[in-house]
Amino acid sequence: MRLNHIIESQQFTLPTLVELFELTDRMEHTHARGGTQDYHNKIMASLFYEHSTRTRFSFESAMYRLGGNVLSTERANTFSSVAAGETLEDTIRVVGNYADVIVLRHNEVGGAQRAAAVSTIPVINAGDGKGGQHPTQALLDLYTIYKGVKTIEGVKVALVGNLTDGRTVRSLAYLLGKFDRVKLFFVAPSSFQIKQDILDYLTKHNVWFSLESDLKKVLPEVDVVYSTRIEPELLTQKGERLETISKYFIDDNILKLMPRSALLMHPLPRLHEISPSVDSDPRAAYFRQTRNGVLIRMALLVSVLG
Amino acid sequence: MRLNHIIESQQFTLPTLVELFELTDRMEHTHARGGTQDYHNKIMASLFYEHSTRTRFSFESAMYRLGGNVLSTERANTFSSVAAGETLEDTIRVVGNYADVIVLRHNEVGGAQRAAAVSTIPVINAGDGKGGQHPTQALLDLYTIYKGVKTIEGVKVALVGNLTDGRTVRSLAYLLGKFDRVKLFFVAPSSFQIKQDILDYLTKHNVWFSLESDLKKVLPEVDVVYSTRIEPELLTQKGERLETISKYFIDDNILKLMPRSALLMHPLPRLHEISPSVDSDPRAAYFRQTRNGVLIRMALLVSVLG
Amino acid sequence: MRLNHIIESQQFTLPTLVELFELTDRMEHTHARGGTQDYHNKIMASLFYEHSTRTRFSFESAMYRLGGNVLSTERANTFSSVAAGETLEDTIRVVGNYADVIVLRHNEVGGAQRAAAVSTIPVINAGDGKGGQHPTQALLDLYTIYKGVKTIEGVKVALVGNLTDGRTVRSLAYLLGKFDRVKLFFVAPSSFQIKQDILDYLTKHNVWFSLESDLKKVLPEVDVVYSTRIEPELLTQKGERLETISKYFIDDNILKLMPRSALLMHPLPRLHEISPSVDSDPRAAYFRQTRNGVLIRMALLVSVLG
Repeated sequence: MRLNHIIESQQFTLPTLVELFELTDRMEHTHARGGTQDYHNKIMASLFYEHSTRTRFSFESAMYRLGGNVLSTERANTFSSVAAGETLEDTIRVVGNYADVIVLRHNEVGGAQRAAAVSTIPVINAGDGKGGQHPTQALLDLYTIYKGVKTIEGVKVALVGNLTDGRTVRSLAYLLGKFDRVKLFFVAPSSFQIKQDILDYLTKHNVWFSLESDLKKVLPEVDVVYSTRIEPELLTQKGERLETISKYFIDDNILKLMPRSALLMHPLPRLHEISPSVDSDPRAAYFRQTRNGVLIRMALLVSVLG
Repeated sequence: MRLNHIIESQQFTLPTLVELFELTDRMEHTHARGGTQDYHNKIMASLFYEHSTRTRFSFESAMYRLGGNVLSTERANTFSSVAAGETLEDTIRVVGNYADVIVLRHNEVGGAQRAAAVSTIPVINAGDGKGGQHPTQALLDLYTIYKGVKTIEGVKVALVGNLTDGRTVRSLAYLLGKFDRVKLFFVAPSSFQIKQDILDYLTKHNVWFSLESDLKKVLPEVDVVYSTRIEPELLTQKGERLETISKYFIDDNILKLMPRSALLMHPLPRLHEISPSVDSDPRAAYFRQTRNGVLIRMALLVSVLG
Repeated sequence: MRLNHIIESQQFTLPTLVELFELTDRMEHTHARGGTQDYHNKIMASLFYEHSTRTRFSFESAMYRLGGNVLSTERANTFSSVAAGETLEDTIRVVGNYADVIVLRHNEVGGAQRAAAVSTIPVINAGDGKGGQHPTQALLDLYTIYKGVKTIEGVKVALVGNLTDGRTVRSLAYLLGKFDRVKLFFVAPSSFQIKQDILDYLTKHNVWFSLESDLKKVLPEVDVVYSTRIEPELLTQKGERLETISKYFIDDNILKLMPRSALLMHPLPRLHEISPSVDSDPRAAYFRQTRNGVLIRMALLVSVLG
């Protein structure tokens, strides 16, 4: 499989996803053998316009596991000391002469698309703007479900927390909608529910979904619980009571309601959504997600570097 | 060829330049083959006292193409958490025990010279202070002319923009003056013209030059146009009218005045000096310059590392 | 020898120290040969919650000399762009999926211990908090004495400067106390003397020590002078006169009082404790210390990576 740029979740068709996950499985073997030196002549540029050490480390770890080299900045907005105001496009064209692939974290929606339009080397979107895309996060989430549940077809997933603003949840719902017989439970206070555009997409593709507010009711029925943060400051802004947040908190007691083989996922950082006492339960999959993130990114780098 | 420290343009004699460019040509082949692993046991320290991600990436890309490793900081002024105020000399001696070559960006004129005086390993100046030297930029500019025009002897170059303060232009004029039958056109508003010290140097070495203010008049006659920024805030400070800047702006119409085989160069970042519509013209050489920057720096690293 | 985490000086028994120094001697040969590629599949994460480029570079240089790769941040407190407030424990578990060893610089005493408690990969403490531990600094100091004096047993060491707050001096005193017939001279103004807990430890282990304030008196008697900074602002805070500082300043005249084979050490950065005119004297060992720092860290990395 050969991909060009990795810009948004929407570019992945079902066959591409299947092929990507097969490649990711092979990366797992490469990783277990301690990596390769296949890319010892390749350079990845981490071009970050905002700090996101987690995502940066994950990509750089992937590149090192492939034997490659890394140029790295989390201050791409000060790319030159001479003058501020260089366009993203010019910076991308310059970096194209320094590296073989660009991993771009931009602060504006559409930044990755603009970069890809002018780049002479592959661009991978590592997040662009608050409402923008973060496709590699969605892919690693999907891959974690695939590895944990053994299949995606027919999987029942509860998406929990702030579903209105969370790009992670929106992208994941979008990707899950591509698979047959998936059931999605959107579990959130009413003012944090998923937006209509995603529901329209799911309806159009005949995906079963249900809007819920009671987490306890949903838990026994699902294969996967995907928890995300509800920001306390947003709660009061939207006129919800602060206690509402506790209804979505997962501790040992709540965990007991989940099937024994279910997965508890979270995009991290986890603040007050999941009790650390749950971490040692085999269902807690959030740290495994970060491991899968390295594997998915290895596969994506291989796909674009050839 | 074996160099010790790379501190200033003045240290390069004509034979050294010729030898350096031959080595750079060989680096182009190395680069095309995807690099080497010749320096897999070598460490380059990027010691930057100010942010300049472009220059840093260019050097680090060069070191990776040679197979080497990189220590990197753009906050060398906080070299220790214990106390501020360590001398540059002490820092350099310490880094000499961590690396095999230091690439130094310092914020004071003469910083590179001070570093070289005490360093146990080679120091390469990556810019020292506003009025200081940035020899590798001048060398990559010269190499771009050499590759684009096929020769430097007899070349006709228009240097355009803020020639008073631009260290890039001053260093390039200095290096060009070493070659036979070169003709230099300094094109700028009168309050931004090149300083007398450069003119004295050119006169002394019998280099032909001309002071101009009308870009359109000069364009048809030259092999190379080297455009640089005139800062709008300086214009008003120096009592020039803001519209003056538009007389040095290069767009498709202005480009038509240049010979078909001429080169349009710029040290970047480009803000309002050159229209992006010009980028796809084969004469636009500014992105090629950044590629040549990696090659020149590979050659310089090889020269000092042996 | 196989170590797990490197957290504090106290974990090193006398036999472990001896074994570590033998391994460090072998690293010196590896280093002299230009390093190895033994760890080309290994990744070290430099996870720094505060800036300390010197320590970071030293560890990263060690990892590169072993052929390994490095993930690096000096802004670990902004590990995620999504939200502040992730626990150290969660960050450590995540990084455990990106790397094979974590070098941690934390801003709180006990940070390294907390990290080691949850980490799935080895953690090396690169300093935790003002009053905390910095065991690799103490080890490189001890190794420098071992190499310079040829033995540690029976060595006579003057520890000079701010002994109350200096964690370097406290850790070194602790480690020296493990060896037979060592004599320690604590040389400081009375309000900067070593604390009672260290003296109790030395008494318990039958280590000879003496509290002194006159540097000139002590110098002729010792094999090693370990100088540290007395912060001028602390002097006045503690009611000492500012001139006191000059009594601990070492220049050419003071140096003459030291035996010809003695060592003058300093943890660096050196500000006003030692005159630069002394640097070229063979007794000046402070830059050699930084070289030994790389060797010790190579040995420690080998010990934990296996």
